Amino acid sequence: MAYSSEIKIGILGGGQLGRMLIQSAIDFDIKIKTIDPDENAPCKAISHSFEHGDFKDYETVLRFGQDCDIITIEIENVNLEALEALEKQGKKVFPQPAILRKIKDKRIQKQFFIDNNLPTAKFLLTDNQEAIRNASWQPPYVNKLGEGGYDGKGVQIIKTKADIDKAFVEPSLLEELIDFEKELAVVVARSESGEVKCFPVVEMVFHPEANLVEYLFSPANISEETAKKAFDLAEKTAECFGIVGLLAVEMFLTKDGDILINEVAPRPHNSGHHTIKANLVSQFEQHLRAIMNLPLGDTAQVDPAAMVNILGAEGYTGPASYEGMESLLSEPGVHPFLYGKAITKPFRKMGHVTVIEKDFDKLKEKVNFVKKSLIVKSNQA
Amino acid sequence: MAYSSEIKIGILGGGQLGRMLIQSAIDFDIKIKTIDPDENAPCKAISHSFEHGDFKDYETVLRFGQDCDIITIEIENVNLEALEALEKQGKKVFPQPAILRKIKDKRIQKQFFIDNNLPTAKFLLTDNQEAIRNASWQPPYVNKLGEGGYDGKGVQIIKTKADIDKAFVEPSLLEELIDFEKELAVVVARSESGEVKCFPVVEMVFHPEANLVEYLFSPANISEETAKKAFDLAEKTAECFGIVGLLAVEMFLTKDGDILINEVAPRPHNSGHHTIKANLVSQFEQHLRAIMNLPLGDTAQVDPAAMVNILGAEGYTGPASYEGMESLLSEPGVHPFLYGKAITKPFRKMGHVTVIEKDFDKLKEKVNFVKKSLIVKSNQA
Repeated sequence: MAYSSEIKIGILGGGQLGRMLIQSAIDFDIKIKTIDPDENAPCKAISHSFEHGDFKDYETVLRFGQDCDIITIEIENVNLEALEALEKQGKKVFPQPAILRKIKDKRIQKQFFIDNNLPTAKFLLTDNQEAIRNASWQPPYVNKLGEGGYDGKGVQIIKTKADIDKAFVEPSLLEELIDFEKELAVVVARSESGEVKCFPVVEMVFHPEANLVEYLFSPANISEETAKKAFDLAEKTAECFGIVGLLAVEMFLTKDGDILINEVAPRPHNSGHHTIKANLVSQFEQHLRAIMNLPLGDTAQVDPAAMVNILGAEGYTGPASYEGMESLLSEPGVHPFLYGKAITKPFRKMGHVTVIEKDFDKLKEKVNFVKKSLIVKSNQA
Repeated sequence: MAYSSEIKIGILGGGQLGRMLIQSAIDFDIKIKTIDPDENAPCKAISHSFEHGDFKDYETVLRFGQDCDIITIEIENVNLEALEALEKQGKKVFPQPAILRKIKDKRIQKQFFIDNNLPTAKFLLTDNQEAIRNASWQPPYVNKLGEGGYDGKGVQIIKTKADIDKAFVEPSLLEELIDFEKELAVVVARSESGEVKCFPVVEMVFHPEANLVEYLFSPANISEETAKKAFDLAEKTAECFGIVGLLAVEMFLTKDGDILINEVAPRPHNSGHHTIKANLVSQFEQHLRAIMNLPLGDTAQVDPAAMVNILGAEGYTGPASYEGMESLLSEPGVHPFLYGKAITKPFRKMGHVTVIEKDFDKLKEKVNFVKKSLIVKSNQA
């Protein structure tokens, strides 16, 4: 596909990932339409057209794609049959529906890693809570829901036999608890023509309660050898899938220095948000380049960066209000990105803040400053 | 005004400057409405609301501003009486209408420089062509239209007596031709609380025919002493006006090392477009911070940059098509920003390309590559 400003891209999902894709698409003058079941979704005001609808519904997705040249996603939990039908019609659907099928269900995803000799933690498939109770494995282990998890939901640690009472009743898997040194991630892009490029390895720190990324550093504080291993694994994974678009590969660095894939996401990812400010080309622009079959951009990072997720404060559910923006903006190298979500809830991702700072100690200080400064509350109880 | 994501900003004008303001406002989750007489203006698709209307009309502007907390502009040629009426109602109107009055007419602007001891080239006010013919001055000189010039229109060089036949018939001014070493510009911001910050000095190279910036380098290749002079003059000018928002100060560096103000623009400016990619905070974010009375951002530049205007190719008027995007995007550190204008015309500003490159010689090479690579034509004659 040659570049044309007439190209129309449809995105299933209208959340923050779609919003940041649109911000990037504006520079290329690409027309973006989005669809989301939330009538006030973050993409609504800035899409060329926004449809209030259900991306899990076959007819809705099939119709939505009709006037698009390319259809992409910002959430995996969409109607795959409709995407397959659109692909058969000759539409470009990236990531490809067949790959989404392999990734959407974590049980199939894990099996794919095994089938392709991609190192991953040991696991056991379980169909229901009863199967977990009767399994040969004893706690502690991780229990991951097959389908439908997001933002920390659908993953839990089963510490003791008593905890099995709260294990998932739906098809899920048990995974050995990895006593890891660090959690890393690599966002890799693969274009339609097969060009592959990785962003620098990032180091993620998870929120102890919310089970989602609290903040990350980029580049990760690891040896060159480890970084090389992580790149190789990310590239190999993208090649095994044959994906077109972005693939975020989350990994464990074990205490022995091994790298294991934790899980993958076939789209722009929380672990790449800092690239908007910190890298020559952002993950969002890279995704657009990949699915439009344009040359991939230079992923070089200019200065060390951190990314802090701004989560809804505990105890507040309702129309969002932001406290501390004045204080936050008084600090150099600190850049807020608010997602325009109308309603805040405890631990809901409401935005992120990127910090750019050459000195690693100062970077960490600024991360702490950001965490204390910007608070999302609600004026309504 | 404390920050709130409920703040609604109205922008008079829906062109590329408004578009880039909106791109920045998205990160702060600010609601932006725009108005433009072009029903397909670049801001249309990405504004929270877009009005197809005439910002030169009193009633239209007065009505447009009613539901805004802050009203700003992206073009000077708007209805000032309506802005004054909105200001009297208690709306925040930035830049202030009284300042727009001093800047909008270049004749009044020049007199303001004199009245405030701001160094500028000698000039003579002329009411019509006849007055020019009878003036004590002899060509060559510059002839600048008082009101209504933009993008190189409204400025011409009168080389000989015969050229006076094409001099402006409307009120204009004659200005001595400065045999300058370089043309420089400083974008300075002043917030409502009086905080003032300058972006690094840029060096502009003008298109010989179109009389608008063809490309620029930032930072300018000048001594620290000259840069200091330029900063001081830009700050002093912003203070003299008492402006809230951005002021772009275009200057001549004379062969004697003096700095003279050429003219000013009270808004985001072509000489600050590179700041989106090259600086920690862009001129667009800075304008928003200034008019919302938030702390001004750090204007530090990370790497040397150039900005190349992408002008409509000669010989093409009609629906725009872009040639060479694939080639352009294959070069690292090269970032296109297309403005989404439906129609191209010769020399119309259709977009710009920012180049980031540490090595100055390579930066210049890349500028030449960009000029050759990306061409805006039209498939229709």
